[in-house]
Amino acid sequence: MKIIRSPRAMTAWSEQLRREGVKIGLVPTMGALHEGHRALIRAARLRCDALVASIFVNPKQFGPQEDLAKYPRTISQDRALCKKEGVDICFEPTVEAMYPSGFQTMVTLPAIARRWEGEVRPHHFSGVATVVTKLFGIVRPQLALFGQKDFQQSVLVRQLVKDLNLGVEIVVHPTVREADGLAMSSRNIYLSSDDRIRAVTLYRGLQAGAEAIRRGVSDGASIQKTMIQTIRGEPALTIDYLSVCGPDTLEPLSAVTSRVVLLGAVRIESVRLIDNLLAAPPRRSS
Amino acid sequence: MKIIRSPRAMTAWSEQLRREGVKIGLVPTMGALHEGHRALIRAARLRCDALVASIFVNPKQFGPQEDLAKYPRTISQDRALCKKEGVDICFEPTVEAMYPSGFQTMVTLPAIARRWEGEVRPHHFSGVATVVTKLFGIVRPQLALFGQKDFQQSVLVRQLVKDLNLGVEIVVHPTVREADGLAMSSRNIYLSSDDRIRAVTLYRGLQAGAEAIRRGVSDGASIQKTMIQTIRGEPALTIDYLSVCGPDTLEPLSAVTSRVVLLGAVRIESVRLIDNLLAAPPRRSS
Repeated sequence: MKIIRSPRAMTAWSEQLRREGVKIGLVPTMGALHEGHRALIRAARLRCDALVASIFVNPKQFGPQEDLAKYPRTISQDRALCKKEGVDICFEPTVEAMYPSGFQTMVTLPAIARRWEGEVRPHHFSGVATVVTKLFGIVRPQLALFGQKDFQQSVLVRQLVKDLNLGVEIVVHPTVREADGLAMSSRNIYLSSDDRIRAVTLYRGLQAGAEAIRRGVSDGASIQKTMIQTIRGEPALTIDYLSVCGPDTLEPLSAVTSRVVLLGAVRIESVRLIDNLLAAPPRRSS
Repeated sequence: MKIIRSPRAMTAWSEQLRREGVKIGLVPTMGALHEGHRALIRAARLRCDALVASIFVNPKQFGPQEDLAKYPRTISQDRALCKKEGVDICFEPTVEAMYPSGFQTMVTLPAIARRWEGEVRPHHFSGVATVVTKLFGIVRPQLALFGQKDFQQSVLVRQLVKDLNLGVEIVVHPTVREADGLAMSSRNIYLSSDDRIRAVTLYRGLQAGAEAIRRGVSDGASIQKTMIQTIRGEPALTIDYLSVCGPDTLEPLSAVTSRVVLLGAVRIESVRLIDNLLAAPPRRSS
């Protein structure tokens, strides 16, 4: 495995391979790799000829009050994981290389970024859209993989690629979970051991909502109430939002008639956790 | 020459050629081609193996009160000019193909777009940046040519390519002028024959400023005053702005110490005209 830090060298590597007809895959990460990233890398490895994992803690997607400075950095372990899983290039640009003096271009998707995570984190998604556009420009992959855990991000990236004709196939990989069901996240290490146990209640709440849908409950408000009640059973959790949405629009639904996504965000102490589940109503026999 | 309307077909054509090592050039236009476009196409023809001219009147770069509906459309003549000058592909996408339902992504360069044209036309440059990013995604050129006449646009496109790592070489071609000096523009046809004669005063004003700089005048305000006085000599013209700026930053300069750009915009009746000149102070013998 090769480590490349310069965007120019990264592009040169990719352009050479593309001319040879090689299919390049990209797994963009902020490092602090866990089993969720490992699953993304393995899925990517099966779908492309040459695999790039980028490791870049993107300052533009953090708000001023957020955890940029303390975001976990575990570069040696990250590289070891990448090497073990058959990554060809670890692309590790510096902040200065990505955002040199005079940098000003921002990419925004106002409709998708308006709700949910975007409401709590106003510049987050434009930071994500901008860095993804840049990474696609530098790495020039035919394929890129994102985790379903960041569901709104995956919807945004698909729309971005379509809108700007970026020509990259986007694969969204199912969320990888701990044994008890907690979604894997680099931020889980912020949790105290007690809070770590309590955190799974977010997933339980989403599961209760999905179960109601499978049982035939179609009223959006009832499903939301079911999720809220489950999560209120754990007083350590504060709900940011819990919603029943269309999986493409992310608009809240008053009635469930086809596949939906249940989105949730909670806080435990100063740690913010998000998760989601896809759910579909039972088939009616006519 | 082939006409392609579908973005997908355009990308397929380009990808095929790129794999064969062919260098693709793009001249993006809004049609209504004139001698300025012809010069761009000729300059491009000399610098690439395969040449695409795009013809797309981009609604996103027009304001609600602007001339989108009446913008001149001369597609048959445009195609004939392209064919004559050796264009390989005329790319003519529809508005629906470029901005399908659900489209929302916008690309913004707030610092460059703040001043001059951006002040008068608030969403113009984000419309330009968005369509250029899209055209580069669809056509995938190694090279693209823009006219110096739209100076602020050329600065914006260079910064855009750098910021988003679009990997396209940008060539800015000198402004082509009518015999009397008026900069060629698709909008010149809006001028009455009397106003057409008066319009050249914008160029004369910029020339007076450039001449002052060449004579050694270095005070920004004096140079600006020289330009304003020349243009005020023609009462039909209303000045929008006249400025002495750094050619990369487009920030106004109080003192001229190296190469500058003189930017000007005027109105005659309902027609708005822009023009610019590069100028450098005399070399000091030390």
